[in-house]
Amino acid sequence: MNYAYSRRMEGEQDNAIREILALTSRPEVISFAGGMPSADAFPLDFIKEATNYYLENEPISVLQYGSSQGFGPLLRNLVTFFANKGLKTDVENFVVTTGSQEGIELVCKAFLNPSDVVLVESPTYLVALKTFKSFEAKCESVETDHEGVIPEDLEEKIKKFNPKLIYLIPNFQNPTGTTLNEERRKKCYEIAVKYNVIILEDDPYGELRYSGQAVPSIKSMDETGNVIYLQSFSKIVSPGLRVGAIVANKDIIRKIDSAKQSMDVHTASLNQAIVSRFIETGEVYTHVEKIRDLYRKKINTMTDCLGNYLPDGAYFSKPDGGMFIWCELDGKINSIPLLKEAAMLNVAFIPGMPFYAEGGHANTLRLNFTSSSLEQIEKGIKVLGDLIKTKY
Amino acid sequence: MNYAYSRRMEGEQDNAIREILALTSRPEVISFAGGMPSADAFPLDFIKEATNYYLENEPISVLQYGSSQGFGPLLRNLVTFFANKGLKTDVENFVVTTGSQEGIELVCKAFLNPSDVVLVESPTYLVALKTFKSFEAKCESVETDHEGVIPEDLEEKIKKFNPKLIYLIPNFQNPTGTTLNEERRKKCYEIAVKYNVIILEDDPYGELRYSGQAVPSIKSMDETGNVIYLQSFSKIVSPGLRVGAIVANKDIIRKIDSAKQSMDVHTASLNQAIVSRFIETGEVYTHVEKIRDLYRKKINTMTDCLGNYLPDGAYFSKPDGGMFIWCELDGKINSIPLLKEAAMLNVAFIPGMPFYAEGGHANTLRLNFTSSSLEQIEKGIKVLGDLIKTKY
Repeated sequence: MNYAYSRRMEGEQDNAIREILALTSRPEVISFAGGMPSADAFPLDFIKEATNYYLENEPISVLQYGSSQGFGPLLRNLVTFFANKGLKTDVENFVVTTGSQEGIELVCKAFLNPSDVVLVESPTYLVALKTFKSFEAKCESVETDHEGVIPEDLEEKIKKFNPKLIYLIPNFQNPTGTTLNEERRKKCYEIAVKYNVIILEDDPYGELRYSGQAVPSIKSMDETGNVIYLQSFSKIVSPGLRVGAIVANKDIIRKIDSAKQSMDVHTASLNQAIVSRFIETGEVYTHVEKIRDLYRKKINTMTDCLGNYLPDGAYFSKPDGGMFIWCELDGKINSIPLLKEAAMLNVAFIPGMPFYAEGGHANTLRLNFTSSSLEQIEKGIKVLGDLIKTKY
Repeated sequence: MNYAYSRRMEGEQDNAIREILALTSRPEVISFAGGMPSADAFPLDFIKEATNYYLENEPISVLQYGSSQGFGPLLRNLVTFFANKGLKTDVENFVVTTGSQEGIELVCKAFLNPSDVVLVESPTYLVALKTFKSFEAKCESVETDHEGVIPEDLEEKIKKFNPKLIYLIPNFQNPTGTTLNEERRKKCYEIAVKYNVIILEDDPYGELRYSGQAVPSIKSMDETGNVIYLQSFSKIVSPGLRVGAIVANKDIIRKIDSAKQSMDVHTASLNQAIVSRFIETGEVYTHVEKIRDLYRKKINTMTDCLGNYLPDGAYFSKPDGGMFIWCELDGKINSIPLLKEAAMLNVAFIPGMPFYAEGGHANTLRLNFTSSSLEQIEKGIKVLGDLIKTKY
């Protein structure tokens, strides 16, 4: 039969992503594409212990149907976890999600009608753009500089577009690596309150700081319920477990909890129990230090190599944390054909264009430094730098 | 701030369900509400073994990001699993889902625009109704009798409403327990083809047959790609693991895979690996026999007790499988106040009204027999029967 798909599925174009995934799966390729944690960064022994603990002592609680809001012990442990992050919460402020990606989907489901506007950073996380578009929302870009979103332009764009949501990744942004400073965060929050708009604060990388001082989350400034905060455990425990959390006003949580019931009933309980125990035992804090040490070496190696091998005039970001470095090359270079050439030399990255709501910016690209070894970073960046030099 | 939720969240009424969940959580209540498997039905030793196997031997494959379509070994094992169920498939016919509930959500996301019509059985699974409504679809009922959906009325309703989807639970239907016979399945399929409509065949209970002969799935008759089949592993492995699968034409699978990327990236990999090994080792088949033996005793006890304790003239279904028995009481009885009275006597069930797209049918109720012990069933049905007798 001929299928009549929904309007929201029209214009679904993820060929670029699929091509890249295909590229990165060849074993000989040094891949700076993707956004995977290092295979060395998983707390394997802890996960084994926690799994055995629950299957031995509380099997029914992790194998039976659970609450859509989340596994009780995890909800209670999240209160402590967020208190340590400077956020006062109680258990009614959370819904546990199947990864923080489901958090984006659930917030969209609760808030967005077709044609609603979402303001996004330019550039921003490409799967968030895909998600907003899958709700038939319009994504409009707010200008950014190398310190993140520009509050004055945010206010202009609110006046112009009357948006429903403002989507921000304030820490070590994907794809640029930029961290929004405290003053700008305050301004963004005040603007959101002034115009009655929700800020969706996505913070998958907040724990991955390698240098500099932590900046308070926008959610920690929220006295009005204008901020919804997304926590991911993919980068500090394991992405394969698919556990994240939404932190929001209780009224929002009730709506999202209801949407969650029909989306997947609840997030897998054994997986929630592992994360719960990770917090409860304090292992999360010692493990995050290990990850930071591991990734600090990698980012330093990559920025050193980029300094050595990229041609003069090529910009690359030097983030204080996260997983990504952003490059802006000479305007005559298009990073999509560049990727094809690089792939033939067994190096992969992601072209910058799909990170922009309006496309364009063909001269940009994103590099991931967490999933490659130091040797791969040195080798791959030299190959890439030498290739780029031939274009200057 | 005042929140402007999406239109799809308007009229969200799940107070009835919430009240019931609140009732069933009191430990002294014998609950025939809910739809939970027996705590004795989980293959705990197998789950421990499978978990240890993967964490020892292939930790990265279950802890790292995975494919949105599903865990490779599970996709391959699903081909065998479905071959044994009389369904010829290959790996490109599947998307693994976070429970089969996510299967419903994903099919809605791929197909439904606001105001589209979904034809449903009258009555049908209440969370499916909630899901369709969350996509702003209109649910229209097709008449059923004690043998399931009536094909002639299905054709009438297709002509009248021009639906996008027909949602059917052909095996041991939720809530009625009815199984659609082979002849009616064929007719429903032919009608779907004739009018170019998708049948969404939800089969969470198919493996739970206690008497009679298996009936071929509608999907097994599908030569045109009109049928999307939903498999659940919640009832034969564990609902807490949240693993299900969509079986469909490859074109549909590509769309759903794309929607899955923004919904939750992929289903938790360790959980998929456990299910994969459950199939691969053949444990699924021996375990299903154990569950059947366990539940056969329970359903027989419940139907015996209903025969003994319900007043003459009260109807109850005698399903060949599944988890539910359906009761139709005298027309003057309303099962919502009846539930309140029963709860005071420490017995719970679900009133039938929320299972009807158009409401009404206040004299009906659903009983679950899988999660209570034989003693609880005997005690609880006597209490309930005695209470109902006072209304006749």
